Amino acid sequence: MKHLATLYKKELLENVLPFWTSNSRDEQHGGFFTCLDRYGKVFDTDKFMWLQGREVWMFSMLYDKVEQNPLWKDMALHGATFMEKYGRDEQGNWYFSTTQEGQPLIQPYNIFSDCFAAMAFGALYKIDPKPEYHAIAKDTFENILRRRKNPKGHYTKNVPGTRNLKNFALPMILCNLSLELEHILGSEKVNEFIPEVLEEVMNVFYLEDKGLILENVLEDGSFSDSFEGRLLNPGHAIEAMWFIMDLAVRLNDMPLAGKAMEVGLRMLEHGWDHQYGGIFYFMDVHNKPPQQLEWDQKLWWVHMETLVFLAKGWQLTGSEACKSWFEKVHAYTWKHFKDAEHPEWFGYLNRQGEPLLQLKGGKWKGCFHVPRALYQVWQTLEKAPAFSYLEA
Amino acid sequence: MKHLATLYKKELLENVLPFWTSNSRDEQHGGFFTCLDRYGKVFDTDKFMWLQGREVWMFSMLYDKVEQNPLWKDMALHGATFMEKYGRDEQGNWYFSTTQEGQPLIQPYNIFSDCFAAMAFGALYKIDPKPEYHAIAKDTFENILRRRKNPKGHYTKNVPGTRNLKNFALPMILCNLSLELEHILGSEKVNEFIPEVLEEVMNVFYLEDKGLILENVLEDGSFSDSFEGRLLNPGHAIEAMWFIMDLAVRLNDMPLAGKAMEVGLRMLEHGWDHQYGGIFYFMDVHNKPPQQLEWDQKLWWVHMETLVFLAKGWQLTGSEACKSWFEKVHAYTWKHFKDAEHPEWFGYLNRQGEPLLQLKGGKWKGCFHVPRALYQVWQTLEKAPAFSYLEA
Repeated sequence: MKHLATLYKKELLENVLPFWTSNSRDEQHGGFFTCLDRYGKVFDTDKFMWLQGREVWMFSMLYDKVEQNPLWKDMALHGATFMEKYGRDEQGNWYFSTTQEGQPLIQPYNIFSDCFAAMAFGALYKIDPKPEYHAIAKDTFENILRRRKNPKGHYTKNVPGTRNLKNFALPMILCNLSLELEHILGSEKVNEFIPEVLEEVMNVFYLEDKGLILENVLEDGSFSDSFEGRLLNPGHAIEAMWFIMDLAVRLNDMPLAGKAMEVGLRMLEHGWDHQYGGIFYFMDVHNKPPQQLEWDQKLWWVHMETLVFLAKGWQLTGSEACKSWFEKVHAYTWKHFKDAEHPEWFGYLNRQGEPLLQLKGGKWKGCFHVPRALYQVWQTLEKAPAFSYLEA
Repeated sequence: MKHLATLYKKELLENVLPFWTSNSRDEQHGGFFTCLDRYGKVFDTDKFMWLQGREVWMFSMLYDKVEQNPLWKDMALHGATFMEKYGRDEQGNWYFSTTQEGQPLIQPYNIFSDCFAAMAFGALYKIDPKPEYHAIAKDTFENILRRRKNPKGHYTKNVPGTRNLKNFALPMILCNLSLELEHILGSEKVNEFIPEVLEEVMNVFYLEDKGLILENVLEDGSFSDSFEGRLLNPGHAIEAMWFIMDLAVRLNDMPLAGKAMEVGLRMLEHGWDHQYGGIFYFMDVHNKPPQQLEWDQKLWWVHMETLVFLAKGWQLTGSEACKSWFEKVHAYTWKHFKDAEHPEWFGYLNRQGEPLLQLKGGKWKGCFHVPRALYQVWQTLEKAPAFSYLEA
């Protein structure tokens, strides 16, 4: 798999990262532009806190793990300065978005802004250990835990008590975030924290009889026969399964890694479009019509996260299924998402695999899933297979 | 155009209405099921107040205007009883949805639930003049006016002051609603009300240099260079233009009808997909990537409303452009949206014109746009042309 490792590394360093270092810096007002068209030109100037945080995290992580490239550190600091100055309300909640100048635009209704801010300042602290970065990461994480049971606060539209659902995304992100912030929170706290999120991700949202992971369940963990309760998001569940594999490695729990691999493969088989290839965005577990009109589209992050999952599954367990699925998803992804003519990758394809939008970055696509996956696959395929773990 | 009038009438009375009278009544808990699959089978039991109200309105209006069919009156009362009992919170705001049994599920964050409830009870009062129906229609209308400047209340996620946008939908619906409720509000009140909504719809949201109608503008009416500000929704604007034509007839203002026709035709020409046919759902006025992933899909209501607009435009002005566009949109709509094998019509097609979802009703598609348009086109094409107005 060495030639593949090289391919992913080269694509990261020579194609994708230069796109962001060249096009996403706002030299006038700070922070990052993320709405970039096919050629890298800014088409909208709003600043989305998810994507500011993710880009700061990306460049900090690469500086820490790949190479002490001063440009990368400068990118991270450039974004962090904007976030620190304009990103939070008076209670320390992170806005969803600001104007180009940093005026708050959309309220902190979305707790994932906080998750990616904590990830950003946690990673930045590793490469520039200023106490204020430590404090922002820690305070934000604690605020997430405080808001956890009611993440949308008064913005929630559900009448309390009628159908109290909980969503898969937060425990899933917390699996990853707790590992990302171990140097901030301390190993003891992370150890305390892990069993609870593991239980949520691997049991509470897991629908035993189908072997699939649901996006929403009732508060007591039971199935809700409603649009939300029937919803499957294959990419989301598959992404979670590589977070779980990382946790399994940390816990030296290879049966857990094996279970994550099985569940992820089942979601992938279920989510694969046998007619046109690629993985569906949304499905209904009872094959009823989903409410999301974009259900049959093929999204970049779904496919990038699946490649990471498959590479890790193969490396950890030697599973032939992971290997052959990796080849299949790799072929689809490089053929349809990579822009053969211009830097960076397309984000949104129609069911048939043609670009639905020409953008390289937008309100949700930033400097994150493509480069993180290229990095993860590169690193994973460069490692020696760890099959022996399983046999032990 | 007599044969077309007959075609629309027959489709309404023999194909579409029987689908709803047979499948949408919940005999156990009252109200209407609207999530109905291709064959009319219920696939979800939640009750959405938009669609409860619209179905009550539909059957009341048909009873009033077409035929005193006792089944239709019974349908209207069946829905209204459920709405009256379970539809409102203690302040008289209409919930967005309830469970099958009528427990409130989604809060009254959406003022259009109130708009369609007012329409429903206004129409019901015409066929069954009980004082409580009058009171519900009137109180709800007054509540809409009170909430008008801040329709989402504390559910709004916008930080006040940064980019205060106003949306086209409410003034547009009020154009129609004020006429629908004239017997409740009185002609004097409607006369007072009309100039303001006309000004909003025809001037404030109208982008002079392009001749197009925007979905959102800044509070002072100026253009906002943002995702929301650049948004075009051709179907919405075209639907509004037939509401305006109805107002123009009432005001005996034929230049206004002529202007509505011009603007609607421009939106249609702009929104038409020259590659696959049909009208796009969303566009960006500067041709930047829209944020709505469903932008290129073909939605039933967009095409149904366009047929009404074109029939009225042709009948009122004799415009050849309206006539030839009617033929084109008619051909597309009947070919792609009508289900040749089972009753009622498809709602959601992909860009290529194939059904994206097989449902006949859902969370947003109910007994409304298809039958209302069939009724409107039938009635319009049966009338003698009114060209002479224009020449006068």
